[in-house]
Amino acid sequence: MPVPLDLARLDASEALALIRKDEVTVTQYVQALISRIDERDPVVRAWAYFDPAYVLEQARALDALPREQRGPLHGLPVGVKDIMLTKDMPTQYRSPIYSSKVPIGMDSAPVMTLRAQGALMLGKTTTTEFATCHRGCETVNPHDTSRTPGGSSSGSGAAVADFQVPVALGTQTGGSVIRPASFNGIYGLKPTWNAISREGVKIYSLTCDTVGFFSRSITDLQLLSSAFQIRDDAAPPASPLSLKGAKFGFVKTCVWPRATEGTVKAFERAKELLEAEGAVVEEVELPKEFDEIPRLYQYVLSSEGRSAFLGDYLLNPSKLDLLILSHSRNDLHVTRKKHLEGYDKIAALRPIIDEIARKYDALVTPSTTDEAPVLVEPERHTGEAVFNLMWTILHVAVLNLPGFAGPAGCPLGLSLVAPRFEDERLLHVGEAVGRVFAEKGGWASAL
Amino acid sequence: MPVPLDLARLDASEALALIRKDEVTVTQYVQALISRIDERDPVVRAWAYFDPAYVLEQARALDALPREQRGPLHGLPVGVKDIMLTKDMPTQYRSPIYSSKVPIGMDSAPVMTLRAQGALMLGKTTTTEFATCHRGCETVNPHDTSRTPGGSSSGSGAAVADFQVPVALGTQTGGSVIRPASFNGIYGLKPTWNAISREGVKIYSLTCDTVGFFSRSITDLQLLSSAFQIRDDAAPPASPLSLKGAKFGFVKTCVWPRATEGTVKAFERAKELLEAEGAVVEEVELPKEFDEIPRLYQYVLSSEGRSAFLGDYLLNPSKLDLLILSHSRNDLHVTRKKHLEGYDKIAALRPIIDEIARKYDALVTPSTTDEAPVLVEPERHTGEAVFNLMWTILHVAVLNLPGFAGPAGCPLGLSLVAPRFEDERLLHVGEAVGRVFAEKGGWASAL
Repeated sequence: MPVPLDLARLDASEALALIRKDEVTVTQYVQALISRIDERDPVVRAWAYFDPAYVLEQARALDALPREQRGPLHGLPVGVKDIMLTKDMPTQYRSPIYSSKVPIGMDSAPVMTLRAQGALMLGKTTTTEFATCHRGCETVNPHDTSRTPGGSSSGSGAAVADFQVPVALGTQTGGSVIRPASFNGIYGLKPTWNAISREGVKIYSLTCDTVGFFSRSITDLQLLSSAFQIRDDAAPPASPLSLKGAKFGFVKTCVWPRATEGTVKAFERAKELLEAEGAVVEEVELPKEFDEIPRLYQYVLSSEGRSAFLGDYLLNPSKLDLLILSHSRNDLHVTRKKHLEGYDKIAALRPIIDEIARKYDALVTPSTTDEAPVLVEPERHTGEAVFNLMWTILHVAVLNLPGFAGPAGCPLGLSLVAPRFEDERLLHVGEAVGRVFAEKGGWASAL
Repeated sequence: MPVPLDLARLDASEALALIRKDEVTVTQYVQALISRIDERDPVVRAWAYFDPAYVLEQARALDALPREQRGPLHGLPVGVKDIMLTKDMPTQYRSPIYSSKVPIGMDSAPVMTLRAQGALMLGKTTTTEFATCHRGCETVNPHDTSRTPGGSSSGSGAAVADFQVPVALGTQTGGSVIRPASFNGIYGLKPTWNAISREGVKIYSLTCDTVGFFSRSITDLQLLSSAFQIRDDAAPPASPLSLKGAKFGFVKTCVWPRATEGTVKAFERAKELLEAEGAVVEEVELPKEFDEIPRLYQYVLSSEGRSAFLGDYLLNPSKLDLLILSHSRNDLHVTRKKHLEGYDKIAALRPIIDEIARKYDALVTPSTTDEAPVLVEPERHTGEAVFNLMWTILHVAVLNLPGFAGPAGCPLGLSLVAPRFEDERLLHVGEAVGRVFAEKGGWASAL
């Protein structure tokens, strides 16, 4: 059988179709990925754990499966953020407390769900410590190795962008899916909160932590969403969305002054592009209550971080990142009253943002302040989550669409936002909008 | 050194004080518990996993610790509900899917936090399957072995009541702490939601699942709460609450018609007892929006259960309890719209119930419909959670106080309820009220 020249370049859906047609084996597919990782990872450093021999062993086992026993994700290689338990690979959280190479003997729910349908966990992708974002990890941006890939899902974003794996799992507590997606020029979905079980995924903030995905196509995000049964009440139409007459609400939010050149230009360019397609574009000003969210978010994050890390703090205070220590010691003096103020005021805003978003095919908002910043030692800061945390704690569905470039020519994306549990619709709209951004936004991957 | 006759009868705080004074060793203490378990557990069957040799090994290690390395919980024996991971004991969730005897190599956050302070995990206590309450487990009520101990924290409730362990960890999604506490005639605290990290505790409903405790005294609940740093904004006074002039709001709730003889009498008796102490007692009628909670609760439970068990459902549908299957298949046809209606309407009621509860020293409400029902094969139903689920999903602090008897002479309790994050105050009030209920409520343990 002829094997396409570079399987690693395919989207997952394309590769899986070839496997289904017996034109490619799972082994051939992962061999292509292993080659790419061998070639590139000494520079990109996206993997916290990667064992090619074990990957090949699993691939051969999948190839040996009788056709009728194969799942809908048969042969799908997945990068797994290293804060998610994998029964066969270590989980280290980038924490010196968890440096053991011995796997914890259970799969986190996202991994279990994907494996149950035939996916193959390619390895563990790097993360910042416990997915908190005070300091970056060793991973670099594949498009410009002097820059951050973003965080906390650093390895997932970088590996997908770099053709080392077609899709990857990440988590977002502030902006840890959308930011790396934007900085790496790929698609990223932060689904509605709790659409995917977070069992076996390290807790930082129960209210904010959300499991999400990275990919190089909307089709692959649809494949993953479908695997997790993330369905709207009403399925979107089978035919693509026509942008003619579609309606978009552009939301700057209260943190707009933090946007710099790349994002400011992308925001305006996106309006022009959508209008050129015949879409209706409006600027949306959120009610002033939404301006309180950054403050309220900190109350919730700090209070929930305090209880989440209590055990680690009691056992190993000297091995914890300073940000976690600040939560544990409650350095911000967040009272229970403030904590509840955060819970209750934000809970009241969730149906309001749903209602606002429902007036449009999607809201459009910045994903990041700009393209990825240059890495600065020793912090290796992964960039700002200011444009993400509001949507995260509001629990709405958020999709990063790549296509734009910053002043240095590095990628940056914009976010589409849909009401809670309208994830399918968001992807349907994202497909049409993403095509325009990719074709006319001004950036294309040189990798 | 003279050893008190029956260490197993002591409250944990009493036993720990003796250990601190070198009047008792940890080994002697756990030997007394092991004897009690040997004698009683063939009937009560409260333990899913119990290895006396390993317990003694840990006790000896604690005894060998230099004094300056001993934690505030040094030597505290704890029963751990078998849905919480323990790195050194298997975790089986009472599910045929998880029958392996191999421990998962990590401690859940509650276990880690207690061990970090010197506690000793005595064993794993029985649970209903995944802490869902469709069918009961093998455990019986120690006060009347023909009756249920309640569930889902069946073993934790029974073992504490039966003097097999002084305190135990449980979880509550509907009424799984308060119900077994009531049926076993012991104290049970369901703290404010997320006051304790649920890392490593099997997820059923993120919004409802709450880690809680069982004990035979308020002092022991205070010991545990303090170990988890569950602190109010304002610490309650050091001196005991005087009931004279204290104010209690008696809340029947919309499910009051489900209360039968034992609970109806206990409710009235409690009013009389408090009034006799000089307290002010009022009946509180909740706003009519609260009547919707049972319906909204089902929306949330079913929808969250659906995503929580997706992985298990895909891998092992034939090995799942029917209730879980019904969530997985969405037999109740809960739409996303209903799911969000549940989230948003209940979120709006949380500050309202806080405000109502803040007008009183505590709200008083039934813990169970009556004393524990007689076990009926094959379901071995653990009783109703109708009086608990409202408070669980409202996230408020709830304390079961024992002291009353049902028509068959079996124990039943009443709940005190306080606003979110007023757990310390709730225990302070509970100390005074619990003393009256215990002395004059009409029930005392014959064990």
